[in-house]
Amino acid sequence: MKFYLAFNFPLLAFAGLFSGCVTIAPPADRDAANPSDADLEARAAAIHERVITLDTHLDVPILMKRPTFDIRHRHDAHDHQSQVDLPRMIEGGLDGGFFSVYLGQGPRTLEGRMQAKDAAREIFDMIDRMVAESPDDFEIALTADDAARIAASGKRIVYMGIENGWVIGRDLDVLHEFYDRGARYMTLSHTRNNAICDSSTDPAGPEHGGISEFGKLVIKEMNRLGMMVDISHISDDAAMQAIKLSEAPVIASHSSAYAIYAHPRNLNDRLLRAVAKNGGVVQMNMFSAYLKDVETSPERREALRAWREKYGDILELSAEKQAEAVAARGKIEREFPPDLATLEDVLDHIDHVVKVAGIDHIGIGADFDGGGGVLGCYDVSEIGNITLGLLKRGYSEEDIEKIWSGNVLRVLRANEEVARRLQAEDVAAANGEKRA
Amino acid sequence: MKFYLAFNFPLLAFAGLFSGCVTIAPPADRDAANPSDADLEARAAAIHERVITLDTHLDVPILMKRPTFDIRHRHDAHDHQSQVDLPRMIEGGLDGGFFSVYLGQGPRTLEGRMQAKDAAREIFDMIDRMVAESPDDFEIALTADDAARIAASGKRIVYMGIENGWVIGRDLDVLHEFYDRGARYMTLSHTRNNAICDSSTDPAGPEHGGISEFGKLVIKEMNRLGMMVDISHISDDAAMQAIKLSEAPVIASHSSAYAIYAHPRNLNDRLLRAVAKNGGVVQMNMFSAYLKDVETSPERREALRAWREKYGDILELSAEKQAEAVAARGKIEREFPPDLATLEDVLDHIDHVVKVAGIDHIGIGADFDGGGGVLGCYDVSEIGNITLGLLKRGYSEEDIEKIWSGNVLRVLRANEEVARRLQAEDVAAANGEKRA
Repeated sequence: MKFYLAFNFPLLAFAGLFSGCVTIAPPADRDAANPSDADLEARAAAIHERVITLDTHLDVPILMKRPTFDIRHRHDAHDHQSQVDLPRMIEGGLDGGFFSVYLGQGPRTLEGRMQAKDAAREIFDMIDRMVAESPDDFEIALTADDAARIAASGKRIVYMGIENGWVIGRDLDVLHEFYDRGARYMTLSHTRNNAICDSSTDPAGPEHGGISEFGKLVIKEMNRLGMMVDISHISDDAAMQAIKLSEAPVIASHSSAYAIYAHPRNLNDRLLRAVAKNGGVVQMNMFSAYLKDVETSPERREALRAWREKYGDILELSAEKQAEAVAARGKIEREFPPDLATLEDVLDHIDHVVKVAGIDHIGIGADFDGGGGVLGCYDVSEIGNITLGLLKRGYSEEDIEKIWSGNVLRVLRANEEVARRLQAEDVAAANGEKRA
Repeated sequence: MKFYLAFNFPLLAFAGLFSGCVTIAPPADRDAANPSDADLEARAAAIHERVITLDTHLDVPILMKRPTFDIRHRHDAHDHQSQVDLPRMIEGGLDGGFFSVYLGQGPRTLEGRMQAKDAAREIFDMIDRMVAESPDDFEIALTADDAARIAASGKRIVYMGIENGWVIGRDLDVLHEFYDRGARYMTLSHTRNNAICDSSTDPAGPEHGGISEFGKLVIKEMNRLGMMVDISHISDDAAMQAIKLSEAPVIASHSSAYAIYAHPRNLNDRLLRAVAKNGGVVQMNMFSAYLKDVETSPERREALRAWREKYGDILELSAEKQAEAVAARGKIEREFPPDLATLEDVLDHIDHVVKVAGIDHIGIGADFDGGGGVLGCYDVSEIGNITLGLLKRGYSEEDIEKIWSGNVLRVLRANEEVARRLQAEDVAAANGEKRA
């Protein structure tokens, strides 16, 4: 809610660093801007301040594993390769979102799965610790109603979502445990097939033909618990089946439109219509490689290769060595910046989802700290530009409120209602009311 | 293999204690017995010595939880309410069997399930400790081939079986973990319905109509691991479905014949035929209340009620108080002995299973320390009487060998083969050989 008025200035500073094709209008400086632009900015700022802003895919827990990172302090997007921290959330006017309990896929063995469960538990612990250490700045949100209450208190809203059903192994009990820890959605897979379903990007191709038998039980249990089924990353067949299997509306926590850029990670129009019919929501991703055809320059590729070779897994390094690795990477980001999509590309994807699925089925999941960030909105301090961009494209305040939180909170609330109904049915069955 | 020749003498001592209808021939004493009886006893002793004897349901781990119990020492069946220990296994000529990782059903909540998994882990630990503490007396068996090797060494053969699928909660990973710990069968339920299937004795009646969707995955995973599916305790519908679902032969680790005594816990002829067709095995239970219509006298009932009221859960008591409780219970067992079935009842049930299913589908799972034990075979020291009884009824040495271990080892071996095939198919699929 606290909103930094000159929200598009940092964008200009960043834009200058990149050779990318910045298609948003160049505003020169504030004084020289024409009155209608200034009016629009003021209106955007006021709307951004009024609505609850939630990003459904914050990968900052990845950075929280580093001893050199402290979410309470300000970091630089490039020098520190960091896109989310408390000062910049406040500056950018992000009320909160879903902190991602993310784990990349490990070996599909018993040991691999057991390690994944424990590693996930450590991420939940880390998020809990963050809130415990800054009780005036953060608060855990567990229900849709919590969002407004926490936003009103001025604290950041901390929902949690699991990225990669891999972390539950083949264990419905741990799914329940993670719900109890706070997880309110679970992305069924990441970039590889797992026990639950096929991924959209596994080089081996489909393994289950969509959702596995175990996956069907997972969806059933998520419905019973009130955990949103997240169809981002999963294969088209898996997504279509998940939508049909789920008794509650689904979420795509960070996905873009296939019709605008044909990447398997994006949702085609058939899926967009299915999500709409299901009452679900597509949270727009801001991952450049899924938004348009981006290229990595040979210089950047070589610099990154050398960097990786020199430092390896930086979480394995001493704090001192980590700081050195981060600084070295920062130098690469400045010297050989990535080819990024732009905020206008993001808005094109949003427009398409709205056209096909409708304004009630679109939201924001920028994938900050997970590969997201575009020219014009490269870190959380710049998200006011999304509101400004939407306003410029003719979206109303009501539309913008839906995009920033109204839609996803409606979906979460619907999941809560389905859970209440299913649990009541369980109780009735246990009491013999439904038995022959 | 080490066999106590005068195997039927302890029986007589016990038989005298009970008012029950002992129908086996009263042999008076050895000298007075007619030559053909003595011949038969000598033949039985020799056969009993030659064959590998396995009991597939040893509940002694329940007693191992008591600090007053030490499996290496001799106990009295009545004074200590103990039916299995090392000295009596040697005396009775029991080479080994399946030590039961048994847990009664707890609350069907996440917490209840998590506690069950940990409690099961403690039982595995306890069995491991038993073997580690007496490496010359016990050895863990993991494959069908292990039985002969361990028997030849003179050690007791320690297989493990899980009683009650309840202990895996809704978790296929922990099923795998418990396989790795040594479990080679799992009884899908105990006396109540659980997440896997319906029980034959849940007062609430069926809940899943047999095997649940989760249960289907459990059976699939048991097949993949090579863990025998145990249909004892589960409902008739669940048992029939389990037989159809399982790619490997099933076991009924401790079950009797419904046609002989109509108790829901027993297997009807339709199921006996299905087990036979499936290549599985029914291990005869020796639990009196499932063998015939037994009655508890009002005096015994009242004495037991008072005892329970005085001591409660004896595992909660100090070692001293536990010893007192066990002694007090021993007094009741002497003064008001239970109405027990007899070894002849057991043999009637065996004859029926052989008649309906065939000699290749019958074995022994006496349920010692879990409620089993009949007049004529009340503890493990008396199991030679089973061999003698079988011989008297005309079973050949080959038949007896099948009953005592041949059949169940064949079933275990078949499960190992199915597991090898399924795992090879998994590898082939992972290598893309089976993918479109």
